[in-house]
Amino acid sequence: MTTTPAAIRVLPLGGIGEVRAGDEIADLVADAAHRQGTALADHDCVVVTQKIVSKAEGRVVALDADDRDARRRLVEAESVRVLRRRGDLIISETRHGFICANAGVDLSNVEPGFAALLPLDADRSARHMRDALRARHSVDVAVIVSDTFGRPWRTGLTDVAIGVCGIGAVLDLRGQPDALGQELHVTEIALADEIASAAELVMGKAAGVPVAIVRGLDQSWFRESSVRELLRPTNEDLFR
Amino acid sequence: MTTTPAAIRVLPLGGIGEVRAGDEIADLVADAAHRQGTALADHDCVVVTQKIVSKAEGRVVALDADDRDARRRLVEAESVRVLRRRGDLIISETRHGFICANAGVDLSNVEPGFAALLPLDADRSARHMRDALRARHSVDVAVIVSDTFGRPWRTGLTDVAIGVCGIGAVLDLRGQPDALGQELHVTEIALADEIASAAELVMGKAAGVPVAIVRGLDQSWFRESSVRELLRPTNEDLFR
Repeated sequence: MTTTPAAIRVLPLGGIGEVRAGDEIADLVADAAHRQGTALADHDCVVVTQKIVSKAEGRVVALDADDRDARRRLVEAESVRVLRRRGDLIISETRHGFICANAGVDLSNVEPGFAALLPLDADRSARHMRDALRARHSVDVAVIVSDTFGRPWRTGLTDVAIGVCGIGAVLDLRGQPDALGQELHVTEIALADEIASAAELVMGKAAGVPVAIVRGLDQSWFRESSVRELLRPTNEDLFR
Repeated sequence: MTTTPAAIRVLPLGGIGEVRAGDEIADLVADAAHRQGTALADHDCVVVTQKIVSKAEGRVVALDADDRDARRRLVEAESVRVLRRRGDLIISETRHGFICANAGVDLSNVEPGFAALLPLDADRSARHMRDALRARHSVDVAVIVSDTFGRPWRTGLTDVAIGVCGIGAVLDLRGQPDALGQELHVTEIALADEIASAAELVMGKAAGVPVAIVRGLDQSWFRESSVRELLRPTNEDLFR
């Protein structure tokens, strides 16, 4: 039996305020963490909701929420393939390879008359933030950009990773023995998705907490990575 | 803007040892937590992996892992409907309404020559444990029984709830305003699944940590519940 893992803490980061196009989220996060008395530390994982990343990157477009046709056209423009339609709901594949509702086009937590689109490349957004935190705030953290997706078969939404930098998106346990010494049949854990879900527990969609710090993760999990590790190839997918 | 949520701690619980049929998990957990210096407290959520619940409830059967035909028959017996097959992999619906690989029949972390089946009713398992902790250890906690499921479209596995007692399986945000005062479009969070995923981060499949204590959850989330809240009705499911 190996040693018991350490405890993990999930810290909400409030006081970031409204994010505007051109804002440097790394600075907002480092400053807010410092003000809150939970200054960032090496091997923290900073989880940032897609919404403020999209706002900082100017991925916000005018959209009349009541114009269902305009909404549909926008969702279709953000999609490479539509999987299912029911009423106004479209389940599609985005150009990033994510399969989600309405191509991630989101009307909540944006000003009336506008919609937030997914970042063009949230791995790049995460890397930019990680680099800025290292260069300007001397701290070596991982960054996950998260969004809230539904899933088939089960109700409710969970937060998942849409961009990853500095921590494995997937944790590969192949070849490791289980607690009874047999080879593990469970081989790959969706690490970045589980971290995003843990972070969501302190964010609260209504509470204006767009960032969480996850502290105490196993240091061996920190490595170069990409959210693409989490995308199942079409030819291996039984439900597409 | 509402107040910032509190931090959450996810504490691994080691030292439970091998669980045998007839063991009272509530006692094992309370004792291990006490020994470890993290004694259970009111409003903790105890997350217990399915494996030790199945063992305590005697849901372990003899199975020659190399006999693929016996494996297939066992999985089919545990299923009410097969959705997909590929090679030895069967995706099916269990009698509980879960859709997962191999009907939850699991060969890891059980002795060679045996397989663990899902608990017959993991809500009841969770309730039994919650009641026992209250009656014999004077502590009022929620309990989630978790298992490790795959999902379409994304690689890797995440832990989800298969039994829930004392905390909402789903968190309903309908009618709540978002941080900008508009009504939220994201309405239901799969709370128990996110807690199960957070717990998995300290469990580690290889580390012999079958229980985690999640501390600091919003007290308003504690209520009577059932994992059935997380099962999407077939007629609302676009991917079955």
